[in-house]
Amino acid sequence: MESDRLESQLAFVLEIDRLKTVLRRTTLVDGSRRENSAEHSWHIALMAVLLEEHAAEEVDLGRVVRMLLVHDLVEIDAGDTFCYDPEANADKEERERCAAERIFGLLPADQGEELSALWEEFEARETAEARYANAVDRLQPMLHNLATEGCSWQKHDVGVEQVVERNAPIGEGAPILWEHARARLEEAVERGWLRGAGPRGGAL
Amino acid sequence: MESDRLESQLAFVLEIDRLKTVLRRTTLVDGSRRENSAEHSWHIALMAVLLEEHAAEEVDLGRVVRMLLVHDLVEIDAGDTFCYDPEANADKEERERCAAERIFGLLPADQGEELSALWEEFEARETAEARYANAVDRLQPMLHNLATEGCSWQKHDVGVEQVVERNAPIGEGAPILWEHARARLEEAVERGWLRGAGPRGGAL
Repeated sequence: MESDRLESQLAFVLEIDRLKTVLRRTTLVDGSRRENSAEHSWHIALMAVLLEEHAAEEVDLGRVVRMLLVHDLVEIDAGDTFCYDPEANADKEERERCAAERIFGLLPADQGEELSALWEEFEARETAEARYANAVDRLQPMLHNLATEGCSWQKHDVGVEQVVERNAPIGEGAPILWEHARARLEEAVERGWLRGAGPRGGAL
Repeated sequence: MESDRLESQLAFVLEIDRLKTVLRRTTLVDGSRRENSAEHSWHIALMAVLLEEHAAEEVDLGRVVRMLLVHDLVEIDAGDTFCYDPEANADKEERERCAAERIFGLLPADQGEELSALWEEFEARETAEARYANAVDRLQPMLHNLATEGCSWQKHDVGVEQVVERNAPIGEGAPILWEHARARLEEAVERGWLRGAGPRGGAL
């Protein structure tokens, strides 16, 4: 019985390795390649540790970090859904729910339920921990875009109004970080890294 | 002053992105490419969450996870040192100490000291948290090798006695995991994925 439990845990450990092959739209800061969801998860987990003092409310940092380590696992089956693609987002929830069932289902039941609950908490954004975790998750690709002269914004013809709408929840989880990022968006538009407001320059 | 603090934190966030370009000897489980140190750090941080019940002693899991998120940052300057290369290991400590000074020095002093202390704690293996963190860090590449028929063991002509010596500390941090892995090493030798004990088959 005990040995079955360990076998399930180790099978899960091998399965989640696949998150390293799920590519996001964001590039690395050096622009050399697209980022994958596993290294992204590492980056934002460490960001959550470093930026905790900017969280809107007091948070259980351990839970925030566990949430961020887990929050993208559903992408192993569901793929990374580009946040500025409305069509792909239409069935995102359903695809990810199926994925969660299969992937978390590999674990012993108590652990599967625990990880599944962390993922759902992240998605719902109803706790202080989830709001702060979401803030960090959204801030990171903005910082990458700002550091690469809007590399993925430009590639996908994203406009400032889309970036503001997508990222406004940063303000709920970490108002100071949103104020900082918001100001830098204006600079990005001025420099031509991000399409300004007004008539759309092209299809999404 | 406050704004300087945030600027330093965000500069650090961009700097550590470089860990995604540091390649390890281990491959992904699907064998498609070498693993980088950022995605490796994500993997073992989540492993530490999942395998906590197998830790030799009660641990502060939050500190274990923070330690694992931070423990490879020095590789940004010092590179990944292959654990079975005695020459590269001769000056590893000095290279990594210089790296720690520069990299953690980018942060506000209190945070730089905190992260540096976590890194040193990991390296020293003197606390329950560090012993467990080291166990997980060493177990993961063994699992990858076992899942890929000894991909990086074979490529670098590694022998079972080297693997046992390198990984015996898993037994200090998580005896059950070491017992499991140790048994599977014998299977790996039998199947020809790992060179058996005895006269060396070739240079390291």
